[in-house]
Amino acid sequence: MATIIRRSAGFLLKCSSYVRHVTVSSRSMASKTPVGFIGLGNMGNPMAKNLIKHGYPVVASDVFPESCKELQDLGAQIMDSPGDVADRADRIITMLPSSPNVIEVYHGSNGIFKKLKKGSLLIDSSTIDPSVSKGLAKTAEKMGALFMDAPVSGGVGAATSGNLTFMVGGLEEEFNASKELLNCMGANIIYCGQVGTGQAAKICNNMLLAICMIGTAETMNLGIRLGLDQKLLAKVLNMSSGRCWSSDTYNPVPGVMAGVPSANDYQGGFSTALMAKDLGLAQNAATNSKTPVLLGSLSHQIYRMMCAKGYAQKDFSSVFQHLREEENN
Amino acid sequence: MATIIRRSAGFLLKCSSYVRHVTVSSRSMASKTPVGFIGLGNMGNPMAKNLIKHGYPVVASDVFPESCKELQDLGAQIMDSPGDVADRADRIITMLPSSPNVIEVYHGSNGIFKKLKKGSLLIDSSTIDPSVSKGLAKTAEKMGALFMDAPVSGGVGAATSGNLTFMVGGLEEEFNASKELLNCMGANIIYCGQVGTGQAAKICNNMLLAICMIGTAETMNLGIRLGLDQKLLAKVLNMSSGRCWSSDTYNPVPGVMAGVPSANDYQGGFSTALMAKDLGLAQNAATNSKTPVLLGSLSHQIYRMMCAKGYAQKDFSSVFQHLREEENN
Amino acid sequence: MATIIRRSAGFLLKCSSYVRHVTVSSRSMASKTPVGFIGLGNMGNPMAKNLIKHGYPVVASDVFPESCKELQDLGAQIMDSPGDVADRADRIITMLPSSPNVIEVYHGSNGIFKKLKKGSLLIDSSTIDPSVSKGLAKTAEKMGALFMDAPVSGGVGAATSGNLTFMVGGLEEEFNASKELLNCMGANIIYCGQVGTGQAAKICNNMLLAICMIGTAETMNLGIRLGLDQKLLAKVLNMSSGRCWSSDTYNPVPGVMAGVPSANDYQGGFSTALMAKDLGLAQNAATNSKTPVLLGSLSHQIYRMMCAKGYAQKDFSSVFQHLREEENN
Amino acid sequence: MATIIRRSAGFLLKCSSYVRHVTVSSRSMASKTPVGFIGLGNMGNPMAKNLIKHGYPVVASDVFPESCKELQDLGAQIMDSPGDVADRADRIITMLPSSPNVIEVYHGSNGIFKKLKKGSLLIDSSTIDPSVSKGLAKTAEKMGALFMDAPVSGGVGAATSGNLTFMVGGLEEEFNASKELLNCMGANIIYCGQVGTGQAAKICNNMLLAICMIGTAETMNLGIRLGLDQKLLAKVLNMSSGRCWSSDTYNPVPGVMAGVPSANDYQGGFSTALMAKDLGLAQNAATNSKTPVLLGSLSHQIYRMMCAKGYAQKDFSSVFQHLREEENN
Repeated sequence: MATIIRRSAGFLLKCSSYVRHVTVSSRSMASKTPVGFIGLGNMGNPMAKNLIKHGYPVVASDVFPESCKELQDLGAQIMDSPGDVADRADRIITMLPSSPNVIEVYHGSNGIFKKLKKGSLLIDSSTIDPSVSKGLAKTAEKMGALFMDAPVSGGVGAATSGNLTFMVGGLEEEFNASKELLNCMGANIIYCGQVGTGQAAKICNNMLLAICMIGTAETMNLGIRLGLDQKLLAKVLNMSSGRCWSSDTYNPVPGVMAGVPSANDYQGGFSTALMAKDLGLAQNAATNSKTPVLLGSLSHQIYRMMCAKGYAQKDFSSVFQHLREEENN
Repeated sequence: MATIIRRSAGFLLKCSSYVRHVTVSSRSMASKTPVGFIGLGNMGNPMAKNLIKHGYPVVASDVFPESCKELQDLGAQIMDSPGDVADRADRIITMLPSSPNVIEVYHGSNGIFKKLKKGSLLIDSSTIDPSVSKGLAKTAEKMGALFMDAPVSGGVGAATSGNLTFMVGGLEEEFNASKELLNCMGANIIYCGQVGTGQAAKICNNMLLAICMIGTAETMNLGIRLGLDQKLLAKVLNMSSGRCWSSDTYNPVPGVMAGVPSANDYQGGFSTALMAKDLGLAQNAATNSKTPVLLGSLSHQIYRMMCAKGYAQKDFSSVFQHLREEENN
Repeated sequence: MATIIRRSAGFLLKCSSYVRHVTVSSRSMASKTPVGFIGLGNMGNPMAKNLIKHGYPVVASDVFPESCKELQDLGAQIMDSPGDVADRADRIITMLPSSPNVIEVYHGSNGIFKKLKKGSLLIDSSTIDPSVSKGLAKTAEKMGALFMDAPVSGGVGAATSGNLTFMVGGLEEEFNASKELLNCMGANIIYCGQVGTGQAAKICNNMLLAICMIGTAETMNLGIRLGLDQKLLAKVLNMSSGRCWSSDTYNPVPGVMAGVPSANDYQGGFSTALMAKDLGLAQNAATNSKTPVLLGSLSHQIYRMMCAKGYAQKDFSSVFQHLREEENN
Repeated sequence: MATIIRRSAGFLLKCSSYVRHVTVSSRSMASKTPVGFIGLGNMGNPMAKNLIKHGYPVVASDVFPESCKELQDLGAQIMDSPGDVADRADRIITMLPSSPNVIEVYHGSNGIFKKLKKGSLLIDSSTIDPSVSKGLAKTAEKMGALFMDAPVSGGVGAATSGNLTFMVGGLEEEFNASKELLNCMGANIIYCGQVGTGQAAKICNNMLLAICMIGTAETMNLGIRLGLDQKLLAKVLNMSSGRCWSSDTYNPVPGVMAGVPSANDYQGGFSTALMAKDLGLAQNAATNSKTPVLLGSLSHQIYRMMCAKGYAQKDFSSVFQHLREEENN
């Protein structure tokens, strides 16, 4: 994920200590009891490692057993299924690719809900449809457990260095309980509101990011064709009202900035395929809430087209390359 | 114009002093000879006043004689036509609403070109089609004169305080000659390249501005409907990759920031009608140069629709209000 | 629904009579046993009446008891819940506003699936997400029953006169079993393929319809502003390659045709709100299947905006009125 | 051009015979005097031949002398410049690629206006910006001549067989005078209104055509991915409200119809590059008349993108192929 957070977000923590005291006490006594972790992919793997580094025993599971190898060597206990993890741990973090995977891990025949302990804390860091998060929270609540959504921004690099940003949705009284664990993996833990708002904040940011990125690419391409020097144009935009993160921090035009994907043939960064996925979530959320998102919707379609034109695994700033292709009829 | 320039742009001035010395010397001797000014509207009027303040005798003209009254009281000499201005002054600034007005003022039957003196310097600060600028420059050159495009950003406030930004296109050797005058009216004088690039820079910035503004409005509206607090959402965006001038400096959601048009019922600022006009110029430039501008084009259409829905004279950030209207079928 | 079917679609019926003979025989013996009907709204009410007219005893239910009154007077047996209907009838038709209603009627605590008889035939005529249809079919199959999706086109008029078009998805061997009932309510029964393809055909048609309608409205508006007579323009389009159902059968410009909603202040017809709903389904289907639908997606947004601008209950051809509004700044 | 006209458009001819009698008499006496023809490209060449076939002496010119060879062999007199043509003929037809060419041919240093005879009839069959047509008409009028715009639809095939459709704008009293010549080259001669409306009708039709074609391609692609058979889907659309020329006469999906470009790898037909050009004209006309064309504008961008992706010379129905490309990340 391309999101860059530049300073701590301490402004959000208004915990209701009275309620927290009661509900969290049981778990805080258990602070060195095992933490469950389900989903050991590119992101989940370094996240789970950081939990181990901070002294938490980890009980993990993944559909691909080979993904568990490295963590097992570090002392993690590997389980056959999410249900088995829920049997051993009352704090579980899930980090999965998409809504259907999350639903399967929670509701499946060997899912978390089959063996969930009362009082458990479930934190889902996947980026999924907020309405799925809400549904899981409802089910968890009925079973006497607590579900929070806590999607991340920052990418594999931040996951490895423990500098992720978490956008957390769920009961405010339980925010500190989740922070205890999330602090091991992230530098910024932002409380966003009720369940689903973590997802909402994430997909909102990424929708605006996509719009600004495509807008920057269109604008730079137009200006260059109109005879402007690309560095000069970037400077003019960045000192004017066209300034945005995509123009001043992550410029998509090769040669304008160093150290960004556009300077390296759009390798690394945040892939077009993942951006298309997040824009699909934004689109669904907008459709369901009857919210008009004209540019968001068109941006979704543009990234969808790019996936079919060979850009799926390139950084999403490669939209500039997609647009600049010349006509040579 | 909503563009805000935050620091001086001194990086651009690489004058070829040799050439300048020759060509400008005749005019610099004439530095206190009259300067022509055509177009005394909301912007032109305070601009011309600043020339007078700096000691330049002004010879002015406007199709509406009443517009000239105030300037006349300050000592300006009022002419009947642009041609008469050209007869009296060899440095002329034009500030007009749109391409057809500019063409009329230069090519009309009493136009500048009818009485243009050899060696004159023509500076057009209107925001128009770059191809029109190029055509005027060609005609001027044939007549032994020099034409530069120098559209502004900054609005009436900046015009009054002499803090406009000028984006200048034309012969680099003559940039300093134009700066002598533009410095009286602006704080940032940016050299952009050959004739037309001043216009190009301006319409590029405004196209990206429109895209980011609509994107910010869509995103804020979506987030709010998904349950996020609007101030919190703005903070999350501004510390993340969704950050842009429209979100952190000119947020379109009432209640998020003070001192911006959204805090004042979208009064003042940069009107939707003017944004629609600039997007039309960007659209034409893109069509002519066969440049794909998907979001730019849709943004143009959105502002066009807004003009017909009663937003023409509101600040362009009112797109948030346009989008948030609730369904109440 | 605005869809107009002009001739019978008899080309589709390639029934495997062998299989049908076996599976349907039990039900065909029961041809005068009760048929269940759930959802007695504007559409469901006349549809159920047509079943009664054809001699079928009807067992009905609706969340609003008052909706059942009229049908009860005609001899229908009214039940408290969908489950109770399933207890009495082994052929059930559902006609509901949207996916969540359908899920509730089938999966709810007093839903169809609670008392479903083995061998039952379930026909859902609601317009919903094809993936929901597929899920219901899977559940029904596990319980030894058969589910088919059969959304309609034709509106309240066609529902009353028994001239609906049904687009049917499900096992081809069971198509004739469904036809026995659908023939009482419709004039064209089209077999589209496996479960969900009935929905797919419907939302595909409506997506193209929306695109062509907005396109026609934009084009007529542009032509009129360019000085063309509206009737002449319609004629030119209709004899040329711009011809479409929206231009030649349902022209959105008042004064071009008689007997269409545009001739009657956009009253009646197919509402903008329903079109926006169907476009949301198309959008979701496209997002889930990673299919680019650039115009479909923008059309969705345009109808979404119109709902917030007071057009929700007007015919969807009122997009012309929406576009033609004049700027009067 | 892909436009297909299916029946004669005789409904339009309401000539004011009184006025015509006077003005045309001089020319009708001259009916076997030379007719000028400027622009002998793919379209102009067969058109000029048809004039010769009908017994008109032709005086022709083209910037590429080799283009004139064939016509010269048929007896045409070849001139060095448009001006020389105007010197010999008082009825002149121009058929050129774009607005700048037309302006050069009329206004250039050896242009038509240099040697134009009083009372001449100028007919421009190029597809260009209506505002350029209006400007030319004004100039011609000042010189005592008459200008009409008469763009064609029908393509090279129709040009060869003399079956073009002409959409004519200009003085209604002179329509018959133009018909005398246009009838030699076309089967349908439609009077559209004042000067520029011929162009307006043409670009309106092509804008709607582009929208419907892209809409059809998106819809067919979506339906196929949702499991529908492509021929079945086309049939459902064509008997329903989604029906349009692009779905029922020129279907873009290979295998649905025979004898259309999609059945022949998108060879022949109306090229994507020409469609992009016409959409640019529509876009300009819309921008200048402040008309919102949301789908028209996006369609322009889509065809613009396609030109850069290798589709420039393929038939414009290849947008289906453009959209269907699969993701294989």
